[in-house]
Amino acid sequence: MRVLGFESSAKSASVAVCDENGLVSQYFQNSGLTHSRTLLPMAEDMLKNLSLTINDIDLIAVAHGPGSFTGIRIGVSAVKGLAWAAEKPVCGVSTLQAMAYNGTVFPEGSLICCVMDAKRSQFYNTLFEIKDGIPVRLCEDRAIGAAKLVEEIENHKKSVFIVGDGASMCYNALENLKANAVLVPEPLRYQSAWGVCMAALKEKQQSVHELLPVYLRLSQAERERQERVFGR
Amino acid sequence: MRVLGFESSAKSASVAVCDENGLVSQYFQNSGLTHSRTLLPMAEDMLKNLSLTINDIDLIAVAHGPGSFTGIRIGVSAVKGLAWAAEKPVCGVSTLQAMAYNGTVFPEGSLICCVMDAKRSQFYNTLFEIKDGIPVRLCEDRAIGAAKLVEEIENHKKSVFIVGDGASMCYNALENLKANAVLVPEPLRYQSAWGVCMAALKEKQQSVHELLPVYLRLSQAERERQERVFGR
Repeated sequence: MRVLGFESSAKSASVAVCDENGLVSQYFQNSGLTHSRTLLPMAEDMLKNLSLTINDIDLIAVAHGPGSFTGIRIGVSAVKGLAWAAEKPVCGVSTLQAMAYNGTVFPEGSLICCVMDAKRSQFYNTLFEIKDGIPVRLCEDRAIGAAKLVEEIENHKKSVFIVGDGASMCYNALENLKANAVLVPEPLRYQSAWGVCMAALKEKQQSVHELLPVYLRLSQAERERQERVFGR
Repeated sequence: MRVLGFESSAKSASVAVCDENGLVSQYFQNSGLTHSRTLLPMAEDMLKNLSLTINDIDLIAVAHGPGSFTGIRIGVSAVKGLAWAAEKPVCGVSTLQAMAYNGTVFPEGSLICCVMDAKRSQFYNTLFEIKDGIPVRLCEDRAIGAAKLVEEIENHKKSVFIVGDGASMCYNALENLKANAVLVPEPLRYQSAWGVCMAALKEKQQSVHELLPVYLRLSQAERERQERVFGR
């Protein structure tokens, strides 16, 4: 089983190929260039350098959200187009679930706090615990206020490892738990296509038409329309 | 300061760009394809995808060894050629020193054991301890027998994090310390160009002509000649 994974849910972007032996190749960038310009060329260059074509891929995986609306749309759309043309199954995985694999470096029982900057004083977040080397989910993906998240992880009273593009912001907001908290360094901090592949290997395959973005919140345009039309 | 780093000391190969803000891009592969076929195209594709040229790079860094003789020759030769043509300074860093940056994810005071498979029942190895978030060297780079290394790290009686392409072999050889030892998972286990860039940022720049491979041992051809000619 050879998986091609895409991750473009925030500022960084990455593509990876994994097979039953683990990571074959990963191409990551955090340059600020737009994903619509960088993502597909990265995948194309990577396959070519591996002497592979899209026909050698068994499954195409993508982080379907939450995350930047534009980033998720680019990733999901690119994968839909590619998989439709190449007639391959796909798998959309939670950005936060994929990110939790970055935490499998930590000791058994550790808490992994996955945080993305959701703007408007919120994080996209979920919590995992490492059991038998695998991240086990403790709550659903959610948009949560910064203060509420800090209170919740301080209540856990465990060593907590913070990953994701909101990690530094979350770490700085902790007041009473700094001694037990680890701000994961680059290159393991950010969401990665390696994690997307690892998560996809445990999920159900989908047809191209089943793959949809998962935003968790209304977009700015939808919010503003609701406020204008319904006054809320 | 923008650094372009190359790592090709064993089976995996990688290239990375780092600047004063950290990792800009890393392109890693562990496919078994020869580095002479993959390494320079990876660098070329990566720079193009970042909208950079070699003229935008301030320093070219490379893992100068120890490691596979062929791998090191390919990396060092590619960097010498590139830096000579582009008139850039270079920096050769120890493969083991660069690998230690993978360990900066671990808690203060942890022991980082960097191990590469040197064949003939030996490891290329060095030990580091994390102090103020930085890996501090505890011994020189060396080729060491597997049994001797196991004895030495068991004597440390500390949590030990094992990185490098010899990590799994070293972990399996530990008998009394397994409970305190962590076999670092992919994608942080193997030597990486990110680590090469991070190490180079703390080292003295060199001219192209000063850059030389560091093998630590005689090559097979040299050993066999000595045995033939001098009977030893």
